[in-house]
Amino acid sequence: MSLLIVGTVAFDAIETPFGKTEKIIGGAATYIGLAASNFTNKVNLVSVVGNDFPQDAIEMMKKHNINTEGLQIIKDGKTFFWSGKYHNDMNSRDTLITELNVLADFNPVVPDSYQDCDFLMLGNLTPSVQLSVINQLKKRPKFIAMDTMNFWMDNALDDLKKVISKVDVLTINDEEARQLSGEYSLVKAAQKILKMGLKYLIIKKGEHGALLFDTKKVFFAPALPLKEVFDPTGAGDTFAGGFMGYLSATKDISFENMKRAIIYASALASFTVEKFGIERLLELNKKLINDRVRLFIDLSQFEIELDE
Amino acid sequence: MSLLIVGTVAFDAIETPFGKTEKIIGGAATYIGLAASNFTNKVNLVSVVGNDFPQDAIEMMKKHNINTEGLQIIKDGKTFFWSGKYHNDMNSRDTLITELNVLADFNPVVPDSYQDCDFLMLGNLTPSVQLSVINQLKKRPKFIAMDTMNFWMDNALDDLKKVISKVDVLTINDEEARQLSGEYSLVKAAQKILKMGLKYLIIKKGEHGALLFDTKKVFFAPALPLKEVFDPTGAGDTFAGGFMGYLSATKDISFENMKRAIIYASALASFTVEKFGIERLLELNKKLINDRVRLFIDLSQFEIELDE
Repeated sequence: MSLLIVGTVAFDAIETPFGKTEKIIGGAATYIGLAASNFTNKVNLVSVVGNDFPQDAIEMMKKHNINTEGLQIIKDGKTFFWSGKYHNDMNSRDTLITELNVLADFNPVVPDSYQDCDFLMLGNLTPSVQLSVINQLKKRPKFIAMDTMNFWMDNALDDLKKVISKVDVLTINDEEARQLSGEYSLVKAAQKILKMGLKYLIIKKGEHGALLFDTKKVFFAPALPLKEVFDPTGAGDTFAGGFMGYLSATKDISFENMKRAIIYASALASFTVEKFGIERLLELNKKLINDRVRLFIDLSQFEIELDE
Repeated sequence: MSLLIVGTVAFDAIETPFGKTEKIIGGAATYIGLAASNFTNKVNLVSVVGNDFPQDAIEMMKKHNINTEGLQIIKDGKTFFWSGKYHNDMNSRDTLITELNVLADFNPVVPDSYQDCDFLMLGNLTPSVQLSVINQLKKRPKFIAMDTMNFWMDNALDDLKKVISKVDVLTINDEEARQLSGEYSLVKAAQKILKMGLKYLIIKKGEHGALLFDTKKVFFAPALPLKEVFDPTGAGDTFAGGFMGYLSATKDISFENMKRAIIYASALASFTVEKFGIERLLELNKKLINDRVRLFIDLSQFEIELDE
């Protein structure tokens, strides 16, 4: 089954306590696509870049089985550029530069060859752009996930709620869950947000792991305790890509399989933060991923027999 | 095998966003003892109170199989009193009143009948008092755990390090681990702290769960996502008591069994925060605890078969 991904493809310039980069390849859809490509070779990308975007980056995506037919290249435009600086605790960052460039007028077009998609991942984008993609699909995908951020809660809440009501799972972080629900308790927040029309909610807590909720159940995946977080950029998108890649490859959207998907998603995210940008993602293979998942098993699995 | 507990028995007055209490029974050793008593009926208490401490609170302890022979009652003294107010997020609090009273001159005496103890839990106390208890034991217990807090890192670091070097496991929170090690990464912090002479380190992260480290392995127990934290007082002590109670009852200090002990410890702590003070702990029974542990299993256990 194919996985359709919509999101940004961008240049990032990143500064962390460990160093800084020039403009490197970034963007939510880039991380999502590369993460998903570890599980499926049917990844279809819808995004936009300018004429400054290097052809070899597009070739890199193709090499990772990402179909770039839906990647618009705007001849007289420049690629979306973001620059940020992380604080010493790596949990917060300042945005230094945001140049929307071609993203400002992004009008996503889903190619005909993408129409058969069963899984759709809407990366963080203007809610109306996310909605436009859903509306272009003649058949509703089996499973739709979306990411968003506090900016859209502040500036496009009505549109955002419209998109939320049309998808199956929303991924947001803990602060965003509190903002969207007005509840401090994540359990209460989740129940309120699920009522907006979702089947599932994933709350990402960064170094504190991730929670998967439906109306009755909750699953928690820890983050791997790391000696060093080198660059957190893209960890959340890697998580989303791993999650949706695993689901689309296994064709199973039961709660039990979503648990597995979240563990694989967490494992992939734990790689991304080890190097700048997408660097570490490009080095992955099945053995490395399996070894990492084994660390998650050792970290969190126990055996208790309850005598009643 | 018997469990020896040394720690405070106190009066607390607590204010949370949900309400406030008059002086109620509190103290680290009270929570530790009550938690442990769910697993073993051989809990021996060493502590001190004043003549204002109610006899029915002592009877309550006895009813929970806590041996109070080592509880000194200072005829002309007053019981240690602490009063605190929790902030709205329940993660931080202001201390309003600390009256050390009989705790100021606490000179613990281990009764002869306690000498055979195999497990020793040193609640948070002046390090020299903790040390005095270790030194009074003719035979080193099989397993010694200690709790401490940032106050002793600021004011009695040398003594604290001396106690640490004599115990098997230290339980501290994440901020204390960072302070004690000078490392932000909890993985690095743990490795440094273990080198102070410990076999194991438990880092408590409150609502974000708890980590168990030895020099090679790490295990993570999630906290149960709760709709409401009513009163966090005593959660850490309940955790320690559940941990040591389970270990002393099962007589197994393997890493695998410590995992189980931490899950039971987390389950008990999740009860304590549901009501003021020790109120909820007094209501527990085996069925309630088993049901709660089952929630932890559902929350964190998954099945992944790694094909190599």
